[in-house]
Amino acid sequence: MPARPPADSSPLGQALAGGQRLREPAVPQVPGTVPVLTRANRQWPAEPDPQAARVVAALRRELPSGSVRADLQELARYASDAAGLRPGAPPAAVVLPETTAEVQAAMRIASALRVPVVVRGAGSGLSGAVIAPPGGIVLSTERLTRLIEIRPEDELAVVEAGVITGDLDRAAAAHGLRYAPDPASADFSTIGGNVAMNAGGLRCCKYGVTRESVLALDVVLADGTLMTVGHRTIKGVTGLDLVGLFVGSEGTLGVVVTVTVRLRPLPVATETMVAFADSLGDVGAAVQAITRSRVQPSAVELLDESSLRSIDENRGTDLAARGRAMLLLQTDGHGATAEMDELESVVAAAGVSVQRLVGEEADRMVELRRSGRGSKKDTWRIGEDVAVPRSRLVEMIAAMEGIGARYGVEVGCVAHAGDGNLHIGLSAAMRPGEAEPPAAVHAAADAVVRAALDLGGTITGEHGVGALKRPWLERELGTRQLQLQRSVKAAFDPLGILAPDSFLATV
Amino acid sequence: MPARPPADSSPLGQALAGGQRLREPAVPQVPGTVPVLTRANRQWPAEPDPQAARVVAALRRELPSGSVRADLQELARYASDAAGLRPGAPPAAVVLPETTAEVQAAMRIASALRVPVVVRGAGSGLSGAVIAPPGGIVLSTERLTRLIEIRPEDELAVVEAGVITGDLDRAAAAHGLRYAPDPASADFSTIGGNVAMNAGGLRCCKYGVTRESVLALDVVLADGTLMTVGHRTIKGVTGLDLVGLFVGSEGTLGVVVTVTVRLRPLPVATETMVAFADSLGDVGAAVQAITRSRVQPSAVELLDESSLRSIDENRGTDLAARGRAMLLLQTDGHGATAEMDELESVVAAAGVSVQRLVGEEADRMVELRRSGRGSKKDTWRIGEDVAVPRSRLVEMIAAMEGIGARYGVEVGCVAHAGDGNLHIGLSAAMRPGEAEPPAAVHAAADAVVRAALDLGGTITGEHGVGALKRPWLERELGTRQLQLQRSVKAAFDPLGILAPDSFLATV
Repeated sequence: MPARPPADSSPLGQALAGGQRLREPAVPQVPGTVPVLTRANRQWPAEPDPQAARVVAALRRELPSGSVRADLQELARYASDAAGLRPGAPPAAVVLPETTAEVQAAMRIASALRVPVVVRGAGSGLSGAVIAPPGGIVLSTERLTRLIEIRPEDELAVVEAGVITGDLDRAAAAHGLRYAPDPASADFSTIGGNVAMNAGGLRCCKYGVTRESVLALDVVLADGTLMTVGHRTIKGVTGLDLVGLFVGSEGTLGVVVTVTVRLRPLPVATETMVAFADSLGDVGAAVQAITRSRVQPSAVELLDESSLRSIDENRGTDLAARGRAMLLLQTDGHGATAEMDELESVVAAAGVSVQRLVGEEADRMVELRRSGRGSKKDTWRIGEDVAVPRSRLVEMIAAMEGIGARYGVEVGCVAHAGDGNLHIGLSAAMRPGEAEPPAAVHAAADAVVRAALDLGGTITGEHGVGALKRPWLERELGTRQLQLQRSVKAAFDPLGILAPDSFLATV
Repeated sequence: MPARPPADSSPLGQALAGGQRLREPAVPQVPGTVPVLTRANRQWPAEPDPQAARVVAALRRELPSGSVRADLQELARYASDAAGLRPGAPPAAVVLPETTAEVQAAMRIASALRVPVVVRGAGSGLSGAVIAPPGGIVLSTERLTRLIEIRPEDELAVVEAGVITGDLDRAAAAHGLRYAPDPASADFSTIGGNVAMNAGGLRCCKYGVTRESVLALDVVLADGTLMTVGHRTIKGVTGLDLVGLFVGSEGTLGVVVTVTVRLRPLPVATETMVAFADSLGDVGAAVQAITRSRVQPSAVELLDESSLRSIDENRGTDLAARGRAMLLLQTDGHGATAEMDELESVVAAAGVSVQRLVGEEADRMVELRRSGRGSKKDTWRIGEDVAVPRSRLVEMIAAMEGIGARYGVEVGCVAHAGDGNLHIGLSAAMRPGEAEPPAAVHAAADAVVRAALDLGGTITGEHGVGALKRPWLERELGTRQLQLQRSVKAAFDPLGILAPDSFLATV
């Protein structure tokens, strides 16, 4: 595996490293225990914490010196994820274990000292699930990067949690296989992070999300016990499905150290098509026509006008001139051409202009979808990640546009239309001297999430709850289910030391 | 939905109804609390149980009279599943709720009186997960048969738990859709039962097992609370995945009353091929060649010589004359023909003779695979359901044959070779006057399960643990994981009234 740069690109990391202007992503009010730093209060207390010194000493007694970091710059670098929420006081230590045994030692110490622990992959998460617990431990899996085995004859791979997802996929490709889930972050997020968040991606409408590709996990429990859950077999129904429970649990149940994933054959062919629609109604008709077809596409991506403009501004393309919204469709496998022929016919019949793309042209369009949009200078921005039943997609976009107009906030979205998952951006110009995003952006974000719930949807399709979505969690799950989920967590972590400010936090 | 006959085909039900000779399926020794009836002791105590009368009275106060049954014939009819394990004393009552509210009322009464409850679908399970608790309640979902909605535009259906799986599939077909999992029991098992056991089937190697097709559940908890878990959306990561936890939980966590399933497009084409091999080694080479191909077949079924002979004897075919083992392959979708062309080429290259089948010939071969084998007269038989990594399939069959020779027991198998799941039959002739299967059959079954574990496999691929597989459960999960699973159950059912003799039983 190639070495990766340390995950120091968080706003706080950048700010502390270079003293540059801090543009923290706007966040709704979080009712948790983490005192969130604001621009007005972004210095950590200068006084060292005596309890923190005890934690560091205990860790250093049991772990190699290179595995325990406690200088302030390192603590800052690992204090948050890409959501930019930061704790008001530093953690005691960052632990960078190189082996499962080191993870177990760290957890035994944390349990003995009743110290909170947050597990961290690449820190690329967008929901604030990784915020360093003040006085606690950040346990980063970034040095657990062994690719333990690839077994083409069983179509599976066993890798350590810190392996970059794209590296796993490339290693599989050498055997004619692939790791099917393809989060946009695949080139820098880790498989352990993907498991923690149950990451999605473009191909998930055909191949399922992370959960559908995880067969087994080695996990270290809060007390340091190492346990294997799941099977090396494709099928297996022995006992409760603890693999499914760990996937998406956001680090609340244990530390995933090894992941056994299912691999799938690389498709023999992939077909790509774009379609441009003049109205939202036309896009909706095209998406419904795709659903009614007998085709299971491998990608159905929708970009609205705002997203097309953003790509045009950033990359010099002319997509927005071609329609009010764009669909990017892919099919793959032995039937790819026949499938795309059928999609071309049903989408065209819905009154939308279509164009088949091949070779570099197709690759470029996919790349533009994945990373073509730039972030605007001097702009506050909140990114939402809701999902609705596919048939409500157009209603959701219309609701989003109404909310934008009502609050005077610019809105735009890209959607994994094949599974009803919308990434909605809400932004407003930054005014001189403004220290926080204007209330209207927060209010619009709140309205967007509520609209998704009202349409039978969910508050997060693939980014996770983390700290950012906690204000809406109980509204979706209900009080009793939230209590039940907390009881389940308590079965794994009776001391409550893992991810104490997670979505399952009780305070 | 067409009405279904009551589930009275269990060995005990038949025995009690018709007084015919009781041939109970042989069972390994079960260390649970259920006193299992033997041939020597198959009469229930004649004395009525006063506590049972209180339970029945409480139920009759709250539920319509037709929903509570307590006569001995009804109690016997619902006392067990198709595994044939029977309790030594009758349950107090069978509850046949027609509505979710009745399920809630029954569970409130059970909680108030601390009475154990076993939830029952069609009673077609093969693992002994449904054994009536003596003095307790059998809650049958067979009258919860409403098909609440089918939404083609969202590719989902919402049905009550008692709907027969095949009926759901046929209702979906009217919209060009299907419910992909296809357990062999689809024409008589219920979707609720499939959810409880995480049922598999032939198509699961391409489309996944029940878990991959369940989006949301309405469940009644042990205390009568109604709760919805999961989403109507294809994607959703809000909170712990309680849907995945309920699927395969064998009735230990709550009563599933409504199931929201994902539907998939009916494939435009299906291709079928059979291949006959002269040796186990050739079959193994063919299966490996299929795995190495770029094709994801929709069925890869393997029948060994013993299974072919059984079909021949039962149906007058001549399959066993054509080879020592048969593979039955299907591909489906737009690429079905191209995919089967590739499979034909790689399987033939492995030295195995192939034949493409079309139309009725193909349908007949699939039907023979599903239900062509008869049960021999005057024979004791234990059926096992293990899974191993695909690459170990031939080793598992060789081990099975060695075990058969060692214990003087006839062995045979059919396997879902596409996911390494083997159904192994172990049988021995019944001797005059013999009341129990000979010890050699039990010992051989034990050796088969241990062989699967030694090959990196699991004790049950799709039938579930139930009572039959409990003796091996801890060996697979380990003591700590079993404790953890029990703690998770306790979070849902603190009184421990649900499925008290399940795989999570503590005594």
